[in-house]
Amino acid sequence: MSAAAPDPAWLPAPAFRALGSRRVLVAGTGSLADTVHTEVAAACAAFGGAAVRAAEPDGLVQGCDLVFRVRPGHLGELGTEGFYLRRADARTTVTAAAPHGLLHGLFHVVRLGEAAFAGRRPRERHRPALAVRMLNHWDNVRVHPVMGQVERGYAGGSLFWRDGAARGDLDRVRAYGRLLAASGINALAVNNVNVHEEEARLLTGRLGEVADLADALRPYGIRTHLSVTFAAPVVLGGLPTADPLDEAVRAWWAETTARVYAAIPDFGGYVVKADSEGRPGPFAYGRGHADGANLLAGALAPYGGTVHWRAFVYDHRQDWRDRSTDRARAAYDHFAPLDGEFAGNAVLQVKHGPMDFQVREPVSPLFGAMPRTRLAVEVQATQEYTGQQRHVCWLGPMWSEVLRFRPDGASRVGDLADALVAVSNAGDDPWWTGHPLAQANLYTVGRLGWRPGADPHGILDEWIELTFTPERTGDPGRLRDGLRAVLRGSWRTYEKYTAPLGVGFMVQPGHHYGPAVDGYEYSPWGTYHFADRDGVGVDRCRATGTGYAAQYANPWAELYESPRTCPDELLLFFHHVPYGHVLHSGKTVIQHIYDTHFEGVEEVEEARRVWASLAGLVEPGRHARVAERYEEQVRGAREWRDHINSYFFRMSGVPDAHGRRIH
Amino acid sequence: MSAAAPDPAWLPAPAFRALGSRRVLVAGTGSLADTVHTEVAAACAAFGGAAVRAAEPDGLVQGCDLVFRVRPGHLGELGTEGFYLRRADARTTVTAAAPHGLLHGLFHVVRLGEAAFAGRRPRERHRPALAVRMLNHWDNVRVHPVMGQVERGYAGGSLFWRDGAARGDLDRVRAYGRLLAASGINALAVNNVNVHEEEARLLTGRLGEVADLADALRPYGIRTHLSVTFAAPVVLGGLPTADPLDEAVRAWWAETTARVYAAIPDFGGYVVKADSEGRPGPFAYGRGHADGANLLAGALAPYGGTVHWRAFVYDHRQDWRDRSTDRARAAYDHFAPLDGEFAGNAVLQVKHGPMDFQVREPVSPLFGAMPRTRLAVEVQATQEYTGQQRHVCWLGPMWSEVLRFRPDGASRVGDLADALVAVSNAGDDPWWTGHPLAQANLYTVGRLGWRPGADPHGILDEWIELTFTPERTGDPGRLRDGLRAVLRGSWRTYEKYTAPLGVGFMVQPGHHYGPAVDGYEYSPWGTYHFADRDGVGVDRCRATGTGYAAQYANPWAELYESPRTCPDELLLFFHHVPYGHVLHSGKTVIQHIYDTHFEGVEEVEEARRVWASLAGLVEPGRHARVAERYEEQVRGAREWRDHINSYFFRMSGVPDAHGRRIH
Repeated sequence: MSAAAPDPAWLPAPAFRALGSRRVLVAGTGSLADTVHTEVAAACAAFGGAAVRAAEPDGLVQGCDLVFRVRPGHLGELGTEGFYLRRADARTTVTAAAPHGLLHGLFHVVRLGEAAFAGRRPRERHRPALAVRMLNHWDNVRVHPVMGQVERGYAGGSLFWRDGAARGDLDRVRAYGRLLAASGINALAVNNVNVHEEEARLLTGRLGEVADLADALRPYGIRTHLSVTFAAPVVLGGLPTADPLDEAVRAWWAETTARVYAAIPDFGGYVVKADSEGRPGPFAYGRGHADGANLLAGALAPYGGTVHWRAFVYDHRQDWRDRSTDRARAAYDHFAPLDGEFAGNAVLQVKHGPMDFQVREPVSPLFGAMPRTRLAVEVQATQEYTGQQRHVCWLGPMWSEVLRFRPDGASRVGDLADALVAVSNAGDDPWWTGHPLAQANLYTVGRLGWRPGADPHGILDEWIELTFTPERTGDPGRLRDGLRAVLRGSWRTYEKYTAPLGVGFMVQPGHHYGPAVDGYEYSPWGTYHFADRDGVGVDRCRATGTGYAAQYANPWAELYESPRTCPDELLLFFHHVPYGHVLHSGKTVIQHIYDTHFEGVEEVEEARRVWASLAGLVEPGRHARVAERYEEQVRGAREWRDHINSYFFRMSGVPDAHGRRIH
Repeated sequence: MSAAAPDPAWLPAPAFRALGSRRVLVAGTGSLADTVHTEVAAACAAFGGAAVRAAEPDGLVQGCDLVFRVRPGHLGELGTEGFYLRRADARTTVTAAAPHGLLHGLFHVVRLGEAAFAGRRPRERHRPALAVRMLNHWDNVRVHPVMGQVERGYAGGSLFWRDGAARGDLDRVRAYGRLLAASGINALAVNNVNVHEEEARLLTGRLGEVADLADALRPYGIRTHLSVTFAAPVVLGGLPTADPLDEAVRAWWAETTARVYAAIPDFGGYVVKADSEGRPGPFAYGRGHADGANLLAGALAPYGGTVHWRAFVYDHRQDWRDRSTDRARAAYDHFAPLDGEFAGNAVLQVKHGPMDFQVREPVSPLFGAMPRTRLAVEVQATQEYTGQQRHVCWLGPMWSEVLRFRPDGASRVGDLADALVAVSNAGDDPWWTGHPLAQANLYTVGRLGWRPGADPHGILDEWIELTFTPERTGDPGRLRDGLRAVLRGSWRTYEKYTAPLGVGFMVQPGHHYGPAVDGYEYSPWGTYHFADRDGVGVDRCRATGTGYAAQYANPWAELYESPRTCPDELLLFFHHVPYGHVLHSGKTVIQHIYDTHFEGVEEVEEARRVWASLAGLVEPGRHARVAERYEEQVRGAREWRDHINSYFFRMSGVPDAHGRRIH
């Protein structure tokens, strides 16, 4: 790989071999059909096939192995993004109701490879379950003195911004959009939800820079969104207020939004973090979140735009001595009473758990509490709390558990939600994601958004198949097995050697990398474990605790209420128990802590060994980068093991049943 | 006070009233005699006296109330800085062997006020005990991304540098030099001992900026020193090595130093932090600290310059799991074997304790271990670990304890040392030190350097008398008593509510403000407390611990060796004991922790009350600034109390004997 060309990730040229060696007709008009044709033509040029282009397929299908065509009449069944796939008469046909569907069909055919051209295939319908599959880039325009160019970014700099200016490499942005489209992503917010002074101006004076990005992303069907500050009418408009019920404020947003759409006709909408962690919001004017969200929704409605209003609202200046406040309750307490008050083009964007992207949290009770509100599930592809792309931690199984969770025992989160939003883990790193294996997280987001009920292992296999296509010449079975071995269980492994049993945090303050059991224990952030010499955990049950468990419907409220029924992996999230408490697994809490921490390290050491054994099968640059990161992961996992084990041994005084070394 | 004029601190105009209302003769030549005359003339102009100037006093003393004169023949008894004071025949006479002595005599007369002109006074000799009383400014030229403009600075920006350039306000530098001279300081290093890229260039390309500062400080008898990087021959000189035994390296330092003296003829010398916390040093070339120090000493010797070589050398990448390494041992282990190897113009600069400026540490055993080496005692006027100039913490008693410590049971540290060096607590803040009462620390450094055996309460009274001269018109007795009440015990108060019994640290990592009991417990910094459910403290005795206690001569080695004889306030520095261990005070360790933390907060609350009661007696601006900081100190002290008490209650399970609230 040259320094200039980024890694092709899951779209290496050989992945197009099957398609590119056929005769392919692309019929349809508009820029997305052009994109499909361009892709096909490039593939055919590389692999000896032939690309035929037409507005309508009439009479041209004969002799073609693969046909892409648009049938607007199917809009009802397919929407703009769905497609039918069928193979008959030795011909594979992708039929969409709009060109966007052709694009998704194209990448589906690429994923199928030779299988797309074998035998017969009755008509299958493919259509995304969630209308919006979105990335949020927490990218700053100007380097933030604490958070840097990309807040919680572990993949180099931003793809969009550098040192206060647009980065300017629109080819790279286009290549990024192409990768995202192939995973199913169709929306992207280009700047951090913490909108600082310079970033605020993207909405007005620097709108042209956003339009440039939108132009680069549009050919791959990705709509551009913008994070805005609720104080924009004041800081940009010079108004004396940002009160959502003020007429001048409404007019300002209407005019400003009109100008945005003049520059970006398919603009997706706004993303807003308001009255959260110090960001401005409607509270300052005695208004509520629905007032705030509806203000922006009103400005966007005429153009088909959407406001994503984040539900991450809590008291971040809590007194640790105050046991009556529970941060986990906050999102529900703030938003559940507002169900039904949000406009139709407002989406409430809810973090998957009640806290903040920990390796293990219960699913947010908000998903079951707002049936009359459009909801987005927010997950974090960027590995803030899960190893920061220095550790392998494939999050597919965790996200899948969230999306398949049934808040009321019936519907799944993936059915109740309108959107899946992930904080991006990509940057200007040559591998896009710092750790080459972290590409799997980015890929998985899009695919899960398309089909939230999908088996994540199947998605992982897709990613392996595509990404390692060029390398599967040696011993594809061994390579696939090795990749499965190091990735499939990596989330559970990470969970094992970090904070135990759902208790969360225990990370170094600020940067959040590495262990610090008491790092947030006496802090204003509301993230405590209350460990003492007798026990550990947070009592969140209704009977004796903060009452958080009662925010769930049954069966969950009852299940979580008692330590007898609470799932082991969430025990310390819901209950404060003695170290001698016996888990369903039959182990005591303290022995579970010791055992999982020793096991977690052993699993990382084993993964490192497996990776080393793949040396001849993986491109040397990629292999070396991953191998190097495994050294850090092993070091880090041992640090976690020893810190956690020592802390709880010093606290409990209980020796390890197996006599292993605890420092 | 106008925004432009900084606080006059301990030199307000009315402090010159007694002198300024007399007829004063200044006899002598040279710039320091000119300074004395300028001071006298200004005072006389303000208060109606008369200033007479002459090269020799002959025939002019008649009719004068005060005479300053130089008698070079007394050089043996007085040195260049000493003076005789005598009053007879209604005339007060200051006799020095050199003009520098006149300057110190002038400020002595100012301190005496009317007492200098009353009755008879037989000849008294005044002469500084320590030849060098030096400030180290940890000021960066360029703003450091983590440490800022001034590393560990709590008084605004630097007096010397701003945003990469010289600050340019040489009037302010001169005013600073005047204040320092009046306290007894005679040397100052203008940049941080951590010499970063830009700062390195002060030695060569930016030497002119250092010369400007030297020109501003020279009229007040202060020699300018420069912190340099040991790698200078490589990074500035383009040499392939900085090996101290390399001929080209020696030549480079000789030439570079010659250029320094051409620009600053009275240049004081170099300050070096080498092979410490990542700074370059002689170890890279297989050489020792004496080789390194002597290299620079050799370059400085022809001009009378001195190298201050810091002894703050330890392993800052220790593994917390490694119990065999003890950071407290490091300075002794590194340097004691080198006694006798340092050049005569090399001064080994030793932090007062073995760790890092904690509120309570034993005195460094190095002071008793290097009889053939010139030593400097390094203290920290800037309150890195003692409240960061938001808390009142007058450190005079602590420094006095250090200087009066007898390492071998006989000589005092103040007798064994050649120099007292303090990290400055001053900046471009209008009050110089952020907290107006922190001026007392700056003043105390100079006075203790002049007379290490002085009663610190006497020094504090001097500072009160001078500083509050203009305000002593109302009720001087009540004002003085109030200031004594809030300052005298403030160090002990700070000790009470922070880390207990000499155990140290327990601060927030990085910035070091506020409590974090485990903040450094699992870190690479070598600063641990080893608290568990049974006990707390570090076993540093010879019999069972790290052996640090054996670095002392007797009686200390024996005294520290046993928890029975170890002083309470250092118990946890030397021993790991159960929470039920009974102190000499009769209290258990755990009850001592609770009691001192409750008391500490009560003492701060009382100090705040006392300060409030002084409202009518103190200039309103000064009163308001201090009152505002007391609010933060009370908040901070309560946070310390509750964090420490909760931590040890959770660990020990022992309830407070008095049933007070522990969270």
